[in-house]
Amino acid sequence: MHPLADRIAAGDRRAVAQAMTVIEQGGADARELLRSLPSGAECHVVGLTGAPGAGKSSLADCMIRAARTEGLKVGVIAVDPSSPFSGGALLGDRVRMARHSADDGVFIRSVANRGSLGGLADSARDMVRPLAAFGCRVVLLETVGVGQSEVDVMRVADTVVLVLIPGAGDQVQVAKSGVMEIADVFAVNKSDLPGADALARDIRRLVEQRAAGTGWTPPVICCSAATGDGVERVWQAVQEHRAFLAETGLGQARRRQWHQEAVLRRLETVFRQWLQAQASRNSRWRDVLADEQLDAGEAAERLLEHVPWLSGSARLE
Amino acid sequence: MHPLADRIAAGDRRAVAQAMTVIEQGGADARELLRSLPSGAECHVVGLTGAPGAGKSSLADCMIRAARTEGLKVGVIAVDPSSPFSGGALLGDRVRMARHSADDGVFIRSVANRGSLGGLADSARDMVRPLAAFGCRVVLLETVGVGQSEVDVMRVADTVVLVLIPGAGDQVQVAKSGVMEIADVFAVNKSDLPGADALARDIRRLVEQRAAGTGWTPPVICCSAATGDGVERVWQAVQEHRAFLAETGLGQARRRQWHQEAVLRRLETVFRQWLQAQASRNSRWRDVLADEQLDAGEAAERLLEHVPWLSGSARLE
Repeated sequence: MHPLADRIAAGDRRAVAQAMTVIEQGGADARELLRSLPSGAECHVVGLTGAPGAGKSSLADCMIRAARTEGLKVGVIAVDPSSPFSGGALLGDRVRMARHSADDGVFIRSVANRGSLGGLADSARDMVRPLAAFGCRVVLLETVGVGQSEVDVMRVADTVVLVLIPGAGDQVQVAKSGVMEIADVFAVNKSDLPGADALARDIRRLVEQRAAGTGWTPPVICCSAATGDGVERVWQAVQEHRAFLAETGLGQARRRQWHQEAVLRRLETVFRQWLQAQASRNSRWRDVLADEQLDAGEAAERLLEHVPWLSGSARLE
Repeated sequence: MHPLADRIAAGDRRAVAQAMTVIEQGGADARELLRSLPSGAECHVVGLTGAPGAGKSSLADCMIRAARTEGLKVGVIAVDPSSPFSGGALLGDRVRMARHSADDGVFIRSVANRGSLGGLADSARDMVRPLAAFGCRVVLLETVGVGQSEVDVMRVADTVVLVLIPGAGDQVQVAKSGVMEIADVFAVNKSDLPGADALARDIRRLVEQRAAGTGWTPPVICCSAATGDGVERVWQAVQEHRAFLAETGLGQARRRQWHQEAVLRRLETVFRQWLQAQASRNSRWRDVLADEQLDAGEAAERLLEHVPWLSGSARLE
């Protein structure tokens, strides 16, 4: 048993923070700690994403209060970009969150995104486990911005809430990132702005086409995190989705799927290291890579001849 | 010799369009066509990126005119998101571009981004080749939005122009995506808006720290694509960067680096297919992946035991 796991089980708040740091840093200590922690299967991970300025943190704030009213302990993992531009907005968010800091039933943690979110999706899921061991039954996983990497993080969540606001040019970015496809609940925030109803209608149309036959049509809820209007309906929709996941067994299937992808991703990382080593140390590889007469496809085929276990079972397109 | 390559060499415009379609679709025909086309090494690929609404297309428009004034043939590859939200803005862009459609010296092509830009970076570089064979000495490669996938596409370019505007919340997205790190020229567009000078100053500070010792400090140019102010200076900076790449040999080094990555990426794709096949068909793999007692790291280690050629040369973190 890892000493931090013991301390968390005994209700030591500081041990939770230390455990999350250990897990974030990775390595042998993290692995040993994870072996001592429960899987966190009973914890509902709610992803919250949307373009900057959409009001995710205000909505998170409202959802924390809703969960606290039900007597649930809540964890928050906020994925911050370590960005030269982000100071202002994020600082505001953290200040807003600070009102919960005196509440022992809320545990808030910022995770720095150092350039890439690559490994973050993997560690985010693991960071839920000390929170679950501490007794959190809900963990909000919040990302700032929408892009492929945030979508990767969101796939860790059981329920994904996408926050949109009317009239934002960011919608293109949102749509491109593929997050539309993985959202389980849509919150149209700042619903008093012009265009909110039209936006909600457009999303509903998209969502209904897509949802046919899946058993879950993502609800599209107009709300205002500033006034509190409709926010309870968002929280309710999250609970309904949780019940849906449990009843259909889809929740467990999703987690299994995600676990499998996380394992395979680690093997891909190993393979990438192996490739890099070949490219820099193996002279036959170097020759092929330096041959300017070959296009990328041809060069890949030549190299594949040196990897018979691979070329036998798969084909280059 | 592929028949399309012959027709392009003879100056057949329609053949260029057909060749790009063939390359976009990939497969054996594309490979044969590429073998018949020159490498396009003499063509300067200028990447143009920035958040939606930053004015990339207007700037592209101005740059096309500048190149045409110098008598250069220009190709444009515009990477469009196939997005349910994008209709309006992009349609506007295409209309703006239409003014060049009567000009035989300009070839414009939209490439649909079907969900992911994964393979697009590879095919974008290949799509430059029919344009180069047609006589284009400049190809503008334009992406809408900024995210990891656009950054991947931009790495194909010789010179990357990042378009920013003052006061946009998208800056966080821009900063996170890593595109700040790969930009060679910064254009602060809509320079009449408040905050433009401050933004330019902030970027300059960032850029100067980073550029120390590299031989190239990315210029930060305030401009207005609407009025044309400063746009010529952007074009001039692009030309200066081109000269810098040629003089230092960095241009060729960059292309070699990119080619190598493109080759290795193809091998990664093959490995991913192989992994998927193991995960679905190999019962030992299935057992390990289904074992809920193992965390992702442990499961990956177990599986690695079945791949001795890999486990011998690389280590799981």
